[in-house]
Amino acid sequence: MSDPTRPGLFIAFEGGDGAGKSTQVGLLAEALRAAGREVVTTRQPGGTALGSQLRDLVLHGSAMAARAEALIFAADKAQHVAEVVRPALERGEVVVTDRYTDSSVAYQGAGRELRHDEVHAVQMWAVGDLLPDLTVVVDVTAEQGRARRGEVHDRLESEGDAFHEAVRAHFLAMAQGEPERYVVVDGGQDPQDVHGEVLAALEQRGLAVGLVTA
Amino acid sequence: MSDPTRPGLFIAFEGGDGAGKSTQVGLLAEALRAAGREVVTTRQPGGTALGSQLRDLVLHGSAMAARAEALIFAADKAQHVAEVVRPALERGEVVVTDRYTDSSVAYQGAGRELRHDEVHAVQMWAVGDLLPDLTVVVDVTAEQGRARRGEVHDRLESEGDAFHEAVRAHFLAMAQGEPERYVVVDGGQDPQDVHGEVLAALEQRGLAVGLVTA
Repeated sequence: MSDPTRPGLFIAFEGGDGAGKSTQVGLLAEALRAAGREVVTTRQPGGTALGSQLRDLVLHGSAMAARAEALIFAADKAQHVAEVVRPALERGEVVVTDRYTDSSVAYQGAGRELRHDEVHAVQMWAVGDLLPDLTVVVDVTAEQGRARRGEVHDRLESEGDAFHEAVRAHFLAMAQGEPERYVVVDGGQDPQDVHGEVLAALEQRGLAVGLVTA
Repeated sequence: MSDPTRPGLFIAFEGGDGAGKSTQVGLLAEALRAAGREVVTTRQPGGTALGSQLRDLVLHGSAMAARAEALIFAADKAQHVAEVVRPALERGEVVVTDRYTDSSVAYQGAGRELRHDEVHAVQMWAVGDLLPDLTVVVDVTAEQGRARRGEVHDRLESEGDAFHEAVRAHFLAMAQGEPERYVVVDGGQDPQDVHGEVLAALEQRGLAVGLVTA
């Protein structure tokens, strides 16, 4: 780790709805545990008691001003980092999260009235500039995502393909801008193949300590 | 008005708990209505349905990370400005609010782990830089505030005198830095005398259109 005050390892999965992120979080956690690491899996929004309350307000509540929504997602993130992520990293554990700041920036900035850069600034303040050691973008087209999502669960999922393509484009742009801290994997593959690419990316960056990556 | 897209008038009352702000909001609204103005009175946090839910989370919920709390107050502000304040100003009405951004900055920045300038930046983003035409600081000492509050209602009110003095110092510093947009009135006086000073301040700034200020 580059940060000596943070002995753990922090990995985020990002990508559109239906990309298969939660499957990948589970597979990676299993592999890390098999290698003897302590692993905390979590998700955003909603990885804390407060976060769940905020998530319900946003996803199932009444119409909300764009800035209010962005700030509520940021509050969820702030609580999540303070209560779950930082303490685990300080104990030397691995934290694997299903979504992090990039999702908030991608969704709030796509097809709505806010700019990506301003949402990003609020998110970074919320998490006190804590970045993952590796962010895995599980990439699927809007069409693939729609087919996989099946039933629509909330307001964001019900947006059209153009919205989801804008979200996807943001994830890909983030990854392109910081290749050392991101890896893009093709979520259209078999989940085990996606998992193999995730392990390879960790190994390539020297983050796969203890993992068997055939 | 300096802003031609905002024909209304926006007045905020700030000050410690027990300063008598809500009494002054009522007296001013009454005077403005008697002068034929349309007046919206509101308060923060909690001036909208979403705001009330957020207010309950913060004031009566479990322990919360400082940044999460600051972001929730900012979300309340964003919704309040979008749903209540801006529409009323655009209709040419007068908005009188019991607390606005300065309270969030003063309370979040006093005796807690956040700096005033960072909380201020988040608040300004939340409200899209909308500033009151006049902010009235109803000033009382921590001791006066404590005596007037009587029963303690929430977590912030239960803080000690040092905290409330820090909050007060912030209000006074804000007012000193921008004398054209602030007036400080002595909240220890009789409410009618405080009200008279508020009317005089409006008149002095050319904002008392239609008001009879003997």
